[in-house]
Order: sequence, then C-alpha cells, then structure tokens
Amino acid sequence: MKRDKRTGSADLAVPARGLSRRGLLGLAGASVAGIGLGAAGDRVALAASASPGAASASAVYPFYGSHQAGIVTPAQDRLHFAAFDVSAGTTRAELIELLQDWTIAAAAMTAGQDIGEYGAVSGPYDAPPEDTGEAQGLPTAGLTITFGFGPTLFETADGVDRFGIAARRPADLTPLPHFPGDDLDAGRSDGDLCIQACSNDPQVAVHAIRNLSRIAFGRAALRWSQLGFGRTSSTSTAQATPRNLFGFKDGTANIKAEQPDVVNDQVWVSSSDGPAWLAGGSYLVARRIRMTIETWDRTILSEQETVFGRTKGAGAPLSGGTEFSEPDFTIAGRENQPLIGAAAHMRLAHPMQNKGMKLLRRGYNFVDGNDDLGRLEAGLFFISFQRSPAQFTTVQLNLAKHDALNEYIRHVGSALFVVPAGAADGAYVGSALFA
Amino acid sequence: MKRDKRTGSADLAVPARGLSRRGLLGLAGASVAGIGLGAAGDRVALAASASPGAASASAVYPFYGSHQAGIVTPAQDRLHFAAFDVSAGTTRAELIELLQDWTIAAAAMTAGQDIGEYGAVSGPYDAPPEDTGEAQGLPTAGLTITFGFGPTLFETADGVDRFGIAARRPADLTPLPHFPGDDLDAGRSDGDLCIQACSNDPQVAVHAIRNLSRIAFGRAALRWSQLGFGRTSSTSTAQATPRNLFGFKDGTANIKAEQPDVVNDQVWVSSSDGPAWLAGGSYLVARRIRMTIETWDRTILSEQETVFGRTKGAGAPLSGGTEFSEPDFTIAGRENQPLIGAAAHMRLAHPMQNKGMKLLRRGYNFVDGNDDLGRLEAGLFFISFQRSPAQFTTVQLNLAKHDALNEYIRHVGSALFVVPAGAADGAYVGSALFA
Ligand code: HEM
Ligand code: HEM
Repeated sequence: MKRDKRTGSADLAVPARGLSRRGLLGLAGASVAGIGLGAAGDRVALAASASPGAASASAVYPFYGSHQAGIVTPAQDRLHFAAFDVSAGTTRAELIELLQDWTIAAAAMTAGQDIGEYGAVSGPYDAPPEDTGEAQGLPTAGLTITFGFGPTLFETADGVDRFGIAARRPADLTPLPHFPGDDLDAGRSDGDLCIQACSNDPQVAVHAIRNLSRIAFGRAALRWSQLGFGRTSSTSTAQATPRNLFGFKDGTANIKAEQPDVVNDQVWVSSSDGPAWLAGGSYLVARRIRMTIETWDRTILSEQETVFGRTKGAGAPLSGGTEFSEPDFTIAGRENQPLIGAAAHMRLAHPMQNKGMKLLRRGYNFVDGNDDLGRLEAGLFFISFQRSPAQFTTVQLNLAKHDALNEYIRHVGSALFVVPAGAADGAYVGSALFA
Repeated sequence: MKRDKRTGSADLAVPARGLSRRGLLGLAGASVAGIGLGAAGDRVALAASASPGAASASAVYPFYGSHQAGIVTPAQDRLHFAAFDVSAGTTRAELIELLQDWTIAAAAMTAGQDIGEYGAVSGPYDAPPEDTGEAQGLPTAGLTITFGFGPTLFETADGVDRFGIAARRPADLTPLPHFPGDDLDAGRSDGDLCIQACSNDPQVAVHAIRNLSRIAFGRAALRWSQLGFGRTSSTSTAQATPRNLFGFKDGTANIKAEQPDVVNDQVWVSSSDGPAWLAGGSYLVARRIRMTIETWDRTILSEQETVFGRTKGAGAPLSGGTEFSEPDFTIAGRENQPLIGAAAHMRLAHPMQNKGMKLLRRGYNFVDGNDDLGRLEAGLFFISFQRSPAQFTTVQLNLAKHDALNEYIRHVGSALFVVPAGAADGAYVGSALFA
C-alpha cells in the first residue's frame, strides 16, 4: 500500500525545467538524480472543501506576468516576510541558479502544486521528500510570492563586484536615511534579498517561505523574518477597510488596483526612470513599527481621533462626511483651530503635504508574544510599494518630524528592496538584471 | 456627525451587570462612572459579509454552559494563549472581581459584542474607548475563551494563604515532573492563571487576549503568551485532519467530540475525582515544543514514516489500511521487525502502552521568526485536556524516554492549569472554587 502510493506518482508528467543540482542538494542533502519540478500534488483540486473560507481559499493568482503579483493583488489576510543574505562565496552563476530555482518553486506553489517531481508525500523512499508537506490538503488561499533585491546585493565586497551587477544598481537604491526617532535593530533590518509571501491561510504562507529557504540552502540564509496575522490595508475597492491594532480603519486613502493611472504613475518604475532592466518593477519599503498599545488604550477617544484626523467608528475625516469623503484641511472649529489638526497623521501623510506623492500600503498587524513587563510585543509591519524610494522618504520625513502618532509608535526595523518586473513564462524573476 | 455617532449609542440598553470599578479603571485609567458592559456593537450582525470564510466566520459558540467552551469545541484554526500572574497585593475579593469581570467580557466577546456600554467606537469623548476596536467589522469566527488556574494560585506566599484557597487545591494539581530532555524556559512556563482564546480569525483571538489583559490591569499581568497559526488536531469527526510542521496528519487518533463516553471518561473531572468544586472541569497541559525543521527536512521519507509509525500521505498506520484503520502493533516485516517500530511515536503514545489513557489534543503550529543562524523558530504549541494530569504524565514519560521523535524536537515551555467547569448564566467562571 505504501508502495502503491509511491509508484503511483511515477506516472505524473515530469516538466521540462527542474530545480538545479544545488537546489536539489538544498532539498535533499542527498544525491537523487533526475528530480524535476512539477505537478505532483494538485493541492487546490484536492482540498477545496477542507478550507474554512471558500471564496478566498480558492483564489489563485498567476505567478508569471508583466508585474510581480503581491503588489496590486487584493491584499490577502496573512503574511510571512523573509529577508535573506547571500552566503559568502556564492558566485554570480549560483545566484542566478538560485533565482531560477525560486522562480520554478514559486510558480508551482502559487498554482497550488507541490515542489518537486514527487512532491510532499511520495518519491524515493531513501530521500527526503521534496516538499515539506504542511500545505497538503490546503488550497492556495490566494498565495502570492514577491521577490526583491536589497542595496547590499549590488555592493562590492572587499573591492570585488560579487555578482557583476554593481554598475547596474539603480541610482535610487541606496539605504534609507536615518529618520528622527528611528530606533532600528540591525537584526531586523536590511538584507540582500527578500521574499514576501501573502495568503489567506497563514500555513500556506509559512510553507512557501520555509520551502524557499530550504531551496536556498548553501546559497542564501534567512536574515530575519516576520509573520503578520491581519492585513492593515485594502488595495482594492472590492475590499472592506480592515483595522489596525489602534482600532482605526487603515487603508481608506490607499492606492487601489482599480486606479490604473495612479498605479502607473506612483507604483511601477517606468523605462524612463532608470536602468532599463527595472521597468515594470517597484520599490518595496518594510518598516517594523512597534505600537505601545497599553499607552494608546489609556488615551481618550478625542485624542485618538485627533491623532489620526479621522473618526474611530466610520473612519471619516474629522472635517466631515463619510469614510471616503475628501478631507477638507481648511475647515476650522473652536478657537479657529483646523478640525484636522496640523499634527494629524492623515494630514501629514496626505499627498497635498508631499508634493502629490502617494504610496501603495500593504502592511500587516503583528503580535510576537510579550516583553518582560507583560506588554504585548505588537505593532504594524508596514510595507509600501512605490515607483521611487523618494515617495516613502518624503512622507516618512514629514511624519517623523511632526506626527502626533509618534508618541505611540517606534520604528524598530527597516529595509528597502527593489522589486523587479514579473517574469515571463519560461524566464526567471530578475533575469533582465543579469541579461 | 461625530456627535451623532456618540449620542446614538446612548440609546443602547445598559445591562444589569457591569464591570467592576477596578475593571473600569483598567480600561480607562479615568473616572468614568456608570459604564456597564453590554451590546454596544453587535459585530456579528454588522460584518458577516466582510469575512473571507462564511461558514467558520459566522460560527458562534455559547459561553455559558456546564463545561467551558474551547475544549470539545471543534478546534478553530488560530490561537492566542496567555498566562498571567496575579499582581502582588491583590486580595481574594479582588481576584474574584477579576474573574467576574473576565466572565462578563468573555461572554460579550464570544457573542460578537464589544466590551462596555459604549464599546469600541463611541462613548464619552473624554474617556478611552472601552473596547480596543481592532475586531470591529470582524465576525466572531467561532471565538471561544477558556480560563484556567495554575498550581501557584493555590500556593501560600510567605506562609500566607493569599486567596484563602490553599485547602481547596486538588491533590492532582502539582507542577508537572521534570521529564528526560526537558529544556524549559521559566519565562515561557507556568502562571497563576491562563486564558486560551481560539478563533478562525487571528485578529479576533488577539483582540480577546488584549482586552482581557487590559481589564486585568493592576490585578494580574501577562507572564507569557503564544500565538498559533494552524491547528494541529481535529477534535470533531466533521473536521479534516490538519498537518503539523513535519508535514504529517495530526489528530487522527485524537479524542473526538462525537465520542461522549470517551470524553466523559477521559476529559471531564467527575465529582468522585476530587474536590466538589472541580466537577465538570478538566486539566490543561501546555507544552511549547520546538521542532528543528531544518534537520527534519533532510531526513529521508522512510525514516520520517518510521518515526511516527504512519505514512506521510494518507496518515495510515504502517501496519496497513487507511487513515482511521486500527494500528496492528504485532505485524512484523523484514527481519521480523514490527512494521510499527518500538520507538514509533504513535505506538508509544497509544492507549495500549499507557494503561488505556487518552488525551484530547488541541495544539497549534507556531513560527516566531528565526534564530541567529537563520533557522525558523518553529514548533508545536501542544495543548491537551485530560481528566487527570496523570494521563499526560504517563504518556509523556513514555515518549520522553523512548520516542524516535525526540531527535527532532525540544520541549522548551511547560504549564499545567486546572480548568473549572463552565459558568451558569449569571455566575462567573470558577465561582464554585470561592463559594
Ligand atoms: C504604526 C504606524 C502607523 C499607523 C497605525 C498608521 C495608521 C494610519 C491610518 C489609520 C490612516 C488613515 C486611513 C487611511 O487612509 O489609511 C493612515 C493614513 C496614511 N498613512 Fe499611516 N499609519 C502608520 C504609519 C505610516 C507610515 C510609516 C507611513 C509612511 C511613511 C504612512 C503613510 C500613510 C499614508 C500615505 C496615509 C494616507 C494619507 C491620505 O492620503 O489621506 N503611515 N495611516
Ligand atoms: C512536536 C511534537 C509532536 C508531534 C509533531 C506529534 C505528532 C503526532 C502525530 C503525527 C501523531 C499521529 C496522528 C494522530 O493520531 O494524531 C501523533 C499521535 C499522538 N500523539 Fe503526538 N506529537 C507530538 C508530541 C506529543 C506529545 C508531547 C504528546 C503527549 C505527551 C503526544 C501525544 C500523542 C497521542 C496520545 C497520539 C495518539 C496515539 C494513538 O492513540 O494512536 N504527542 N502525534
């Protein structure tokens, strides 16, 4: 019976492209020849009924395309984000092979398939399974996997251009400046490479990061990682606006996928912006922001609303209207003070205060246990996508200096990555950089 | 408009019972008189459509009843577990008040209601909102809240019987013994009180623990807490068996709610077992178990199956059959070795090896970032419910000594709590202990 299970899978088609030898070593630590990467287990088809959320569980987003998925994709509910450093001694050819392996594996997983020819639960009895298996029985739940390159990937080490790409570094891809109030932990910042895995099922997102880390073995190692349990932004007009851990609707004035002009103008790098290889890409900023929720929870309602410039219930601007009403920053109330105060988060972050610049926000709430004083280690894992890092820097500089919210938050991690365009079917993510 | 929102809520009924003055102080740090606890926001009704998973999202389990919910309740997908220590100087009367406040708040939240008369998004403008608000717009998603008492709650401090309950301590409620291989972190172990919040939406579970911690302010403080993202057991025959982070089906041979005789025999404390106040209760064991997944992932399939004594695909016993077939521990294979080996986890944990003792397992997978070497800090947050701690101790002693799985796991946290019976409507959880 066990035999049946395994010989059965030998009938499955072996795809043209397989993981590299090094990728297989990462999986196996064993010398198994001829293991390709294919459709060993069609998890979606197997398991649609096992999942709690029929609609979001069955969502499947194409991996290949002109832009990477996971940016304008309607924000999924859960996140596993990981930053990697390329291991010492890794060559340009090995880095390329890693990106090829990651591409093949990501395409399989986002399509609801196992990694490898035999997948998670069968294959040679004397080799480790190619897929770690905890996503068996789960649907894709809208999984997207988004890859990025950090500034350090382009740096020369000891005067040597590690991967021969120093000259192709976008001028914009420099480490973010230090902002007032920054209290950054190097162990939760930066990285040569990043992977953002989003899904409506956390186990599916975790499975993706775990298997991609495993494939990277010997070539790149996890530097830091972060789970997020609740999305804090809507990126589609079809989504209800979620709430952050301060209890406010978050994502109201976000860029939405249904605004193609704004997306083109503010999110995608155009061919006139910089190096040709980057056209169709974007810049990803990640900030781990601690929220001191115990202090916030003792703050009176009027102060809470003043801090954001919006009502807590409907999320309407304090100048009046409903959630999606345009704020009027000129209307004054008592003592001629503006209803939306000068230090209100939404005023300072608004495009009017930032030369028309906007961000596509795609962050997640997190709670990582508690500290020794019994305070929840909680906050916002802020992620934004933008055409240029200058958009983030402009807004954040404004916020870091003046935002009333600063009394209740602390930026403890920071990273910038450039996200290349999507891969065409048959190519790998980032191939234009190495062409 | 903001005024409308707030005065509107003044029309809502104020319930007979409200939070204690101390509970209100926890919420407000302010002197707001006359705030009861009621149905300010019926989140379920508001928001059924906002949720991804219609079926599991709309689930509501009654809080009051003969047993506490969250034990035989079909295991929800997500967990936030918290252990508390009672603050120094807290009196018996204050502890009772805390349990009363927790009961009222838990009953409201599990019914999909906000905490407090005014709830999360309205109320006096010059007071902190009574509810922290991040669950606004979310359905209950099957929220259950389960309370437990640790051995230390019954201890005398400096010779003083803090709460006057030392004499009522069940004889069984002593700290768990040290097991071979234990590598426990005191900061992730024990506690005077515990709360297990389970829901199909993690934000709903986090909201519950956060608000209950807030209500406890000055009386009890968080000692440790753990989020779990994927359940690792089914507790109902209606549930598909989920997979743990080793990729195996977990929960196959678990006690199921549909076996009332087994539940009565193995899970609920009977009136003949010990102190009368505990009848209808249970014992909760929590073990934080690190899984070294990188090592596991390099282990060949045959070894993985040998370790558990089950196939990885179907989860069938290695003696043959399908997932729910009875294992046959006598069938031998090559060289007369039993197909289910002597060190196989499922053999050692099976009732046949443990004087017929069973556990109701209700654990969760966790990933809490990664360590400095880039290894995922991942594992199983094991929870089991049993009529007597001896059931867990017997099985765990067997496993700790002989289990092949020990090569891949490490127990790093441990706690035992007694879970009192459910509260009758109008009473508070644990009232029999103080009667
Ligand atoms: C813990 C930290 C933060 C919290 C709790 C927070 C919360 C909020 C909330 C509640 C709103 C109003 C609703 C909405 O339009 O989404 C908002 C708006 C916004 N936030 Fe934040 N935010 C945080 C940090 C940041 C950071 C670091 C940035 C970028 C540097 C940022 C950029 C924006 C922008 C661009 C808007 C929209 C402003 C508008 O056009 O009206 N936020 N934020
Ligand atoms: C990370 C640690 C653990 C893992 C990965 C794990 C996994 C599993 C798996 C895959 C099974 C077989 C399927 C099933 O019946 O659920 C199983 C069975 C079982 N496990 Fe564990 N387990 C772990 C720790 C423990 C501990 C600490 C205990 C209790 C002390 C325990 C008690 C049991 C019991 C009672 C069974 C059912 C045996 C039977 O009646 O067939 N497990 N476990």
